[in-house]
Parts: sequence; structure tokens; C-alpha cells
Amino acid sequence: MEICSSINGVRELAQKARAGAKRIALVPTMGFLHEGHISLVKGAQKSCGFVALSIFVNPTQFGPSEDFSRYPRDFERDARLCREAGVDVIFAPEAKEIYPEGFSTSVHVEGLTAPLCGASRPGHFDGVCTVVLKLLNIVSPDEAFFGEKDFQQLAVIKRMAKDLNLACEITGMPIVREPDGLAMSSRNAYLSPGERENALSLSRSLLLADEMAAKGAGTGEIEASTASYLAENSIRVDYVSILDPATLQQTNSPRGALMALAGFAGKTRLIDNRILTR
Amino acid sequence: MEICSSINGVRELAQKARAGAKRIALVPTMGFLHEGHISLVKGAQKSCGFVALSIFVNPTQFGPSEDFSRYPRDFERDARLCREAGVDVIFAPEAKEIYPEGFSTSVHVEGLTAPLCGASRPGHFDGVCTVVLKLLNIVSPDEAFFGEKDFQQLAVIKRMAKDLNLACEITGMPIVREPDGLAMSSRNAYLSPGERENALSLSRSLLLADEMAAKGAGTGEIEASTASYLAENSIRVDYVSILDPATLQQTNSPRGALMALAGFAGKTRLIDNRILTR
Repeated sequence: MEICSSINGVRELAQKARAGAKRIALVPTMGFLHEGHISLVKGAQKSCGFVALSIFVNPTQFGPSEDFSRYPRDFERDARLCREAGVDVIFAPEAKEIYPEGFSTSVHVEGLTAPLCGASRPGHFDGVCTVVLKLLNIVSPDEAFFGEKDFQQLAVIKRMAKDLNLACEITGMPIVREPDGLAMSSRNAYLSPGERENALSLSRSLLLADEMAAKGAGTGEIEASTASYLAENSIRVDYVSILDPATLQQTNSPRGALMALAGFAGKTRLIDNRILTR
Repeated sequence: MEICSSINGVRELAQKARAGAKRIALVPTMGFLHEGHISLVKGAQKSCGFVALSIFVNPTQFGPSEDFSRYPRDFERDARLCREAGVDVIFAPEAKEIYPEGFSTSVHVEGLTAPLCGASRPGHFDGVCTVVLKLLNIVSPDEAFFGEKDFQQLAVIKRMAKDLNLACEITGMPIVREPDGLAMSSRNAYLSPGERENALSLSRSLLLADEMAAKGAGTGEIEASTASYLAENSIRVDYVSILDPATLQQTNSPRGALMALAGFAGKTRLIDNRILTR
């Protein structure tokens, strides 16, 4: 496995693989890898002969009061996990390699970025889109892999790729959960044991919502009940929304809809989602 | 010469040329071609074996009160000129091919877009950047060619290409002028004979400015004198600016600086520029 910190380095490796008629995959991450990331690598290996995984904690997608500086980092562990998973190259650039002096370009997706995390985190998706577009242009993959835990991010990146006529295919992979249901997230490392227990209410509330939808409850009723359940479990709710998964617009029919949650366990912001049973 | 209106069509032709080991050039235009455009084609042919020329009057770079609907169009003439010049493919899409329903992405370059035409035409450069990025992603050229008449546009596109790690080289080509000095522009077709005469004052004023700079005049003095000269020739001045050509920031040393002009001859907005002699 190669480790590159320079744009030219990873670009050359990807070009060499392409010249060898290999299909190229990119798995963009912010590191502190967990099984969710590894499932992206496995998905990438199924359809591509060369897998690049990027590790870059992208400053421009964090708000001023967010956790950029304390975001968990452990490059040695990440590199071991990537080696074990059979990643071909890690691209782990410094911030100044990605944003050299004078950098002044940004990409904005309208509409899909308005609700959910876009409403709570102004500028977040501009940061995500810009860095993902850069990574796609650097590696020129045939396919890039993203987790469905960040459902909105995946939708926004698919939109960007389509709108900008990128040749790269954007593929989402299912959420990977801990045995008790908590969605895997690098930010789970922040949780105290008590917060970890409370955080379970996110995935549990999605199952409860699914049962309510199956019994014919309406979106308003499900959203209110879910918000109460989370509050009872000491989760400070950011949003509880039932939306059309294609447009991320509000919908009145919960069956088949996206149920998306964000809330704080202590100071840690967690997200989760589920497509409610049709 | 091929003519494509579909993205897939031009993409396949460019891929075929690339597979034949040809270097690919893109010349993006809004059509109503003149010798300036043809000089871009000639420049492209010097370094590339396959030249795609796009013709697309991009609605998103026009303001609501600008000349989008009456912008001059003559596809048959353009196609003849391209054939004579040896263009390999014209890409002439309909607006809905470039902006299908649901399109919602835009690219913004900060800083370089603030002065000059960016100040007079809000949103103009977002429209330019977005469509140029799309065209670059569709054709995947090794090199794209732009005229230096739109000096700011060239600077902004170079910045975008660098910031987004595009593999494509961005090349500027010198302004082509009519024998009497008027910079070639599709919009010159709008001019009445009297306006055409007045419009000559733009290029003349750049020569006068150059003489003043050579004699040691300061930027303020040159700008004021140029604005007066244009007004005397019935040009309604939009801007007269002496700027650092790298940053487009104001400078106090006119020698070697960019002198950029925009003004209206009647209802027709014209631009011109010159690097003042060092």
C-alpha cells in the first residue's frame, strides 16, 4: 500500500493503475476509520481494481463553533486498517496542499442543501462539495463511495456530479451499525458511557417511527413522538424530519420516506436515518 | 467536421480522439464567430490534434436586463467558419441539455470576480465558471483556449482550474483587432455607424494611456484622463481601471499594469484592455 501526501503523487499512481486498464475507486474519508469506512472499501473492491482512500479532515466544512480542532485523528491506526482491508493508496494531504495560498473557489448546490444538516450547519455542504470535487479531479476515479449515514451529503454529491457532468459514478453504501444499533461514526469516540447509552435512542427511535408508520401514523405525529422520545433520553434534538428521499422536501406520506435525525448527546452531534418501510 | 448537440455525442468523439493518442483542445464560445475566435482555433491546432469548439449562449451569465435574448446568433455562418478553420467538432447544445430540470449547482470564485465586470454584472462570473466547468468535464480537453479581451474571465477561469485541480491547461490568446484598432467582439454587430466610430475611442484611449504611463503619469491621472476622453467620444463609462494583472487589485504603478475598460456605445456594452508598457 502506498501513502501519498502530495496531489501529484496520488494522481500518478491512479494514472498508472488506469493505464493498466484498472477501474479506479475513491473512498473519501476524514479518517479515524471504522467499519462503515471499511465497508466502503469492500464495496469499492467489488467493482474496481484500484482503491484510493483519502483521509482529510476538511476545515471548510466545519463551522466556527464546531469540532474541527478536536476531531479524532489516528493516522497509524487508519493506515493499519487500510492495509488490512487491501486499500491500494492512502491520500493524506496537509491542508495547505488542498488549500494553498490564494485559494478562492467554492461549489454550491441549491435546494437539497437547504433542510436538515444544511439548515443547522451553514456553509457545510459548500465545504463538502468543494473538497469532494477537488478529490474527484485529483484521483479521477470511475466510481466514488459514500456512506448512507450522511444521506443528505450523498444526495448533494450525486446532484453535483450530475450537474457538473462528472464522469465519475457516485455510489452510496448502507449504514453500518454497532451490534446494539448505534450508527458507526468517528464522533462516537467522543461519547462518555452515559452519552453512549443515550445515543442508542437515535437508532431505536427510527425503529419506533417505522412501527408507527406501518400502523398508519402521519408524519407530524411520528416526528413529534420521536422528538419526545429523544428528549426523554437526554438527546438535545437538532432536527427530526420525514422527507421525500429524492428531493429532501417535506412529505405527508411517511411510508417509503426518509426519516432523518440529528441530535446532541452531551456536546457530540450525531446523525442517523432510515427509509421507512413502504 | 462533426456537429453534436448532445453531451454524449461530443464526449464520445473526444474519447475516440483521445484513444487515438490525440491531444484534445476545447474552444468555448457563444458563437457569432469572428477572427478572435478563429485565432483561438489556430492556437488550439498548434498544440492539439483534435479541436472541439462549443457554441452556447449561456443564459446564466447574463443579467436580467442584459442582451441574452438578442445576442447575435448565426449557426450556419459559424459552422462554415469552423469547417474552413479545420475544427473537428462543434458542440452546440440546447439550453435544456446543459441545464436540465432540477439543475442546482454553481461555482463561485471569490476575489478576482469582485472588480471590473464582476462589479457591474452580479452573478456573471458564477454563470461563466459553472458552464465552463461543465464544458471542461464534458469534453475533458487537455487544453482550453480563451481570448484575452475578456481578461478578467481568463484570470477567473485559470483560478478555478487551479483551485479545483482540473487536469486541463488554460491558455489565453492575444486580442484580435479590426484594422482600425477596435477589439473584435460579437457585440460589434450591434453598433450603428456612429457608435462604431465612437467605439474606436476605447482602443485609442488605451494607447493614450500607455503614452501617459511612459511619460510617468500616475494611475489616478491616467484613469481620469481616459474617462474624460471616452466621455468626449459619447462612450458612457462603466469602468476605467488600472490593476495588478495577477490579482486584479488596484495598483499605484501603471507600468506593466492591466488597464481595463468597459463602456457603452449606445446600448452596446464593450470592453477592452491592455497591459501598459513596463
